[in-house]
Amino acid sequence: MALVDLIADKKFGRELTDAQLTEFAEAAADLSTPDYQLAAMLMAIRLNGMTERETAALTMAMAKTGDMLSPDVGGIPVDKHSTGGVGDTTTLILVPLVAACGGKVVKMSGRGLGHTGGTVDKLESIRGFRTELPEETFLKIAREVGCCVVGQSGELAPADKRLYALRDVTSTVDSIPLIASSIMSKKLAGGAMGIVLDVKIGSGALMKTMEDCLALARAMCDIGRRAGRQMAALITGMDEPLGSHVGNALEVKEAIDTLSGKVKGPLLDVSLALGAQMLLLGGQAKSADEAMDSLQNALQNKSGLNKFKQMIKAQGGDERVTEDTSLLPRAEQVTRLLAEKDGYFSRMNTEQAGLVAQVLGAGRMRKDDVIDPSCGYILFKRIGDYVKAGEVLAEIHHSPAAPIRQAENMLREAMTFDAVKPISQKLIRAQILPDGKEIL
Amino acid sequence: MALVDLIADKKFGRELTDAQLTEFAEAAADLSTPDYQLAAMLMAIRLNGMTERETAALTMAMAKTGDMLSPDVGGIPVDKHSTGGVGDTTTLILVPLVAACGGKVVKMSGRGLGHTGGTVDKLESIRGFRTELPEETFLKIAREVGCCVVGQSGELAPADKRLYALRDVTSTVDSIPLIASSIMSKKLAGGAMGIVLDVKIGSGALMKTMEDCLALARAMCDIGRRAGRQMAALITGMDEPLGSHVGNALEVKEAIDTLSGKVKGPLLDVSLALGAQMLLLGGQAKSADEAMDSLQNALQNKSGLNKFKQMIKAQGGDERVTEDTSLLPRAEQVTRLLAEKDGYFSRMNTEQAGLVAQVLGAGRMRKDDVIDPSCGYILFKRIGDYVKAGEVLAEIHHSPAAPIRQAENMLREAMTFDAVKPISQKLIRAQILPDGKEIL
Repeated sequence: MALVDLIADKKFGRELTDAQLTEFAEAAADLSTPDYQLAAMLMAIRLNGMTERETAALTMAMAKTGDMLSPDVGGIPVDKHSTGGVGDTTTLILVPLVAACGGKVVKMSGRGLGHTGGTVDKLESIRGFRTELPEETFLKIAREVGCCVVGQSGELAPADKRLYALRDVTSTVDSIPLIASSIMSKKLAGGAMGIVLDVKIGSGALMKTMEDCLALARAMCDIGRRAGRQMAALITGMDEPLGSHVGNALEVKEAIDTLSGKVKGPLLDVSLALGAQMLLLGGQAKSADEAMDSLQNALQNKSGLNKFKQMIKAQGGDERVTEDTSLLPRAEQVTRLLAEKDGYFSRMNTEQAGLVAQVLGAGRMRKDDVIDPSCGYILFKRIGDYVKAGEVLAEIHHSPAAPIRQAENMLREAMTFDAVKPISQKLIRAQILPDGKEIL
Repeated sequence: MALVDLIADKKFGRELTDAQLTEFAEAAADLSTPDYQLAAMLMAIRLNGMTERETAALTMAMAKTGDMLSPDVGGIPVDKHSTGGVGDTTTLILVPLVAACGGKVVKMSGRGLGHTGGTVDKLESIRGFRTELPEETFLKIAREVGCCVVGQSGELAPADKRLYALRDVTSTVDSIPLIASSIMSKKLAGGAMGIVLDVKIGSGALMKTMEDCLALARAMCDIGRRAGRQMAALITGMDEPLGSHVGNALEVKEAIDTLSGKVKGPLLDVSLALGAQMLLLGGQAKSADEAMDSLQNALQNKSGLNKFKQMIKAQGGDERVTEDTSLLPRAEQVTRLLAEKDGYFSRMNTEQAGLVAQVLGAGRMRKDDVIDPSCGYILFKRIGDYVKAGEVLAEIHHSPAAPIRQAENMLREAMTFDAVKPISQKLIRAQILPDGKEIL
């Protein structure tokens, strides 16, 4: 069937067959297919939608356009995916904690574009840390240590790579079937048998409403289950940065401080909730309570921190950072942002807060941009806090060349203060459990 | 505004401003704009539609991306456009008839892809006929003779050229706002002040339903009027080829036979109806009756045929063809298609009948295909005729190398015979008059 006829079927609102969706996925992976036909199809999908069956079939077909891994890690490989937020370094906390409880995590992370680097970039702020390892090596680390975080290996879902780039420039990002198939095609190809999703909601999230978040979470769980994977999902708040530290080395520091038990708060809470689901899917716990107890134990007896240390060492990094975070890269200058008046910190434009980190040099705007691992900021206040004029709102860590005035203004504008205390929001807004039950 | 934001607005179903549509048209004419963004916008327009104002604004903006002509022909320049059919050679009949009645017609025709060549290709089957003339020359011919048919001069509506090519491969042809803006952008740029539209309906037409035909005719008239042009439209039947001759030289022969008064029928009837509207728009007649009388007169006294002769001579062609059509190229072989059984000729798949001519070599499948002017076929039966087994249905004119068996089978399959006489259909199904009144 010619691609133009597939486009026509979707344009007329018809449900596409599995064979048609496979054809579309293969066309997307085939460089001789013109972009304009893919773009027209993406817009037709964006406007006419896809059924659950179509979404699952497209996702599996996209996964199959590249390598399909089945990592031998000596257990059920589990993975986690976050739809992305600011100061969201749960991976660095939950991966070692889950491993300390007997879970097996091979985490493939992208570098990506965004306000800060991806998990791989964050880890590379540890001197010597290698994220590009031969498959043999990283599987060995996963088996022996229990966890390993590497850059994407082989070519996972090349169809998605092409469609993802096109969606950005054709205004077809905001389609739940397309978002779900994009994320899940890489997860299915990566070979995780248990997948925990962290769908963010709020001012720093792609999805702003509970309705959309639930639809996305359900779509992704449905795809995974149809492909024989165990699935769970949390919908968690992103109305302000999850941790207080934003920036690559700063977030590694916060992860270490958290694993050391020095820091508590929303970042730890979400990491534990996600980690508990991973233990359930990996078979290391029979109930959520049992899973949570194990994780708390790994936190208290520092076995999580120790796993992180082992993993850093195994991946060639300077593992002493787990005991002395001053070994992480540090910015030359620190500028304090002071409160201008009294009031409750009531709202944050978290998307803009993310851009502040990018402006400082923590993230890439283009693929070949070089990241400054040391820059970023630390927030000293959370939404709901009463702030007095002159108090420190944030410490901005930067190089002398960074546009510090712009960053200051952006960060200040991102924070709203009011006379009235804001209503506090739950951190974990909804859950889809492994058995499909929903807690809303 | 970035193009991706324009796409987003249309995706969300918002009405675009004139400035936005101008931006889109200019982007389409700009070769540095990627095809995929145009393709996504075309699909968004196809699915979310455009208002009359948007359609008119886009059309004018597309026209303005290239040359805007205002031909000085010593009168109101009038033009005609047909949405295309099989055996549709009205242009060669009405142009000289209208000129004989004092009208001024500068007709710019494309070559185009299709079952037969365009008007320009048909005329080039006359030995010596030149369709590429300097502007000065063709305007002089139009002023002195009253009519001139040339290939497209200068660069008319380059934005349309790009979008037209993209629509074909992205399944966005079937959008009334896009069809209307494509046709009218070239007409507005060509400078005609009076434009008569011939919208075809039936098995050989792009549009199959009266609803769609009327919507398209109204959309085009609306665009023209908003641009200060006088407009009229007919909706005419295309359930079988309009004339009995299909093929380039064969259609020229039929046009000459019609102008000589030897042949009457639907081809003449539609030519006269369209010609009458052109005389009204050009100011050569005050009423439809007066216009029709003038045209009938030009037919009877052969002044129409004489105009055709003058035009051929002025454009370098062998004008003797108007008296001796055997001077036109003739195919080496003629194969007769005979009826296999008795019955009423009840239906025709006219689209397939068009493809028969293309298979024989009368049309181009690709831009650089060479046309065989001599090939095609003559139908001896019209829908509603009772046919006896063994009677000649058609004479196929072809070269010895043509796939005659395939052509025979296709033509035979295109014709349906029944025991019951079919209900006869009106030829002119609806009209939109210059004052906007509709006769349905």
